[in-house]
Amino acid sequence: MNLRKNSYMERIASKQNKKVKELKKLATAKGRKKSDQYLIESWHLVQEAINNLPKKDVISIFVTDDQYLEHGSDLKDLNVISISDEIASEIASTSTTQGIFALCKINNQSLLDVKLDGAWLLLDDIQDPGNIGTMVRTADAAGFAGVIFGDGTASQYNSKVQRSMQGSQFHIKLVKAPLSSAVEKLKLQKTPIYGTELNPDAVNYKEITPLSDFALIMGNEGNGMNKSLLKETTNNLYIPIKGKAESLNVAIAAAVIMFQIIK
Amino acid sequence: MNLRKNSYMERIASKQNKKVKELKKLATAKGRKKSDQYLIESWHLVQEAINNLPKKDVISIFVTDDQYLEHGSDLKDLNVISISDEIASEIASTSTTQGIFALCKINNQSLLDVKLDGAWLLLDDIQDPGNIGTMVRTADAAGFAGVIFGDGTASQYNSKVQRSMQGSQFHIKLVKAPLSSAVEKLKLQKTPIYGTELNPDAVNYKEITPLSDFALIMGNEGNGMNKSLLKETTNNLYIPIKGKAESLNVAIAAAVIMFQIIK
Repeated sequence: MNLRKNSYMERIASKQNKKVKELKKLATAKGRKKSDQYLIESWHLVQEAINNLPKKDVISIFVTDDQYLEHGSDLKDLNVISISDEIASEIASTSTTQGIFALCKINNQSLLDVKLDGAWLLLDDIQDPGNIGTMVRTADAAGFAGVIFGDGTASQYNSKVQRSMQGSQFHIKLVKAPLSSAVEKLKLQKTPIYGTELNPDAVNYKEITPLSDFALIMGNEGNGMNKSLLKETTNNLYIPIKGKAESLNVAIAAAVIMFQIIK
Repeated sequence: MNLRKNSYMERIASKQNKKVKELKKLATAKGRKKSDQYLIESWHLVQEAINNLPKKDVISIFVTDDQYLEHGSDLKDLNVISISDEIASEIASTSTTQGIFALCKINNQSLLDVKLDGAWLLLDDIQDPGNIGTMVRTADAAGFAGVIFGDGTASQYNSKVQRSMQGSQFHIKLVKAPLSSAVEKLKLQKTPIYGTELNPDAVNYKEITPLSDFALIMGNEGNGMNKSLLKETTNNLYIPIKGKAESLNVAIAAAVIMFQIIK
């Protein structure tokens, strides 16, 4: 089955199609930067994008016949392009793709444009896309206002990060900025800033009285937070380890502290 | 370089070697069950196994020349078998293997043999090996006595589960048992049992007064806990979601509750 009878709908069935080549370039940071676009995948994320992004930022929907049958009625007024299953596999970032994608405009919010009210999670040189996505999802659930992606942290537009954020990228603010600038701005507005370290000389996280406006910084999986940033914080927190585990996964540690200290 | 000059050391360089074929069979549950053995990988885990398992349960160490140079002095009194880099890749479960492995005896502790004192985490039909491993590691860090792997939960001897437990498998008790039996035993000894559900009618986890002896049950990633188990608990807990996220990752939810309710 194909949907050629819908004569209004553009269809791509050749891998040599220029659009396919352009979409494939979005798998790299370089490709995304050049076009200022990124691709998301799966009905759940496409739906969240449609519901939450400004309409002009959802450039096109790429959809297989099966997915169009299932979700076509939710795709009205969008620039929908029909693709073959083969093209879906070609542009997918996973081996088991559903066959529905949204091409979206990158919206790089600058630190200057964002009010740092409420609770903010700051990511310092976090490498693992799964950890990053999980932290954004957890920050959303915990009631945080946003997440700042500091230097060295994988991009929010990386497909694995997109996937593991599970829609939370469309619920809270995500900003890319050097953490030194973010910390400077937070200090000017007198927002408490909590660093984290694996050091019992730091403050037990349970001693913090829950509050509404604060920033929490999580550091690199292996090396922890940047040493110079540790000196700029209001307090540095640690989670006492009772058993023989050497450390906690960074997304786990972030969750335990976030849910404890937010009011 | 090879270590043939160490004439006392067995060396395997052929993929056709019978031991290699046997080791490869341990990648499946069937193979592990038949031989009652499992394979762990990386110096960190091998070292934890040597330091924590009864000596008779560490059957052999398989090591490349490079790894032997680095760790040979820690492998005295063990049955060390030298392997080529090619064999290391052949038996490894990851594409970037360090080249050091321990063949260990499976030690299936029965529920009857284990005292259910302290805090216990019960896993009900948890599928993702990374989630399981992270929960075991977190339970260790939080001071739990052990983890019970209920029906449908991936095996503790699965290589991905082993890897993500990061050594905690050697620090706390891991038991495979139907959760109905575990719950029955816990009830007989009057230990509070907390289930978890995504339902605001359940008890907010922050309302539980921290305690030392209890059981916490986490359910399947998609479907939550088994409905009949939910009826057997002292209380069912939920974590209030403040933002727009639909749910928390199961390992994140487990961590937030574990660190909150353990004394």
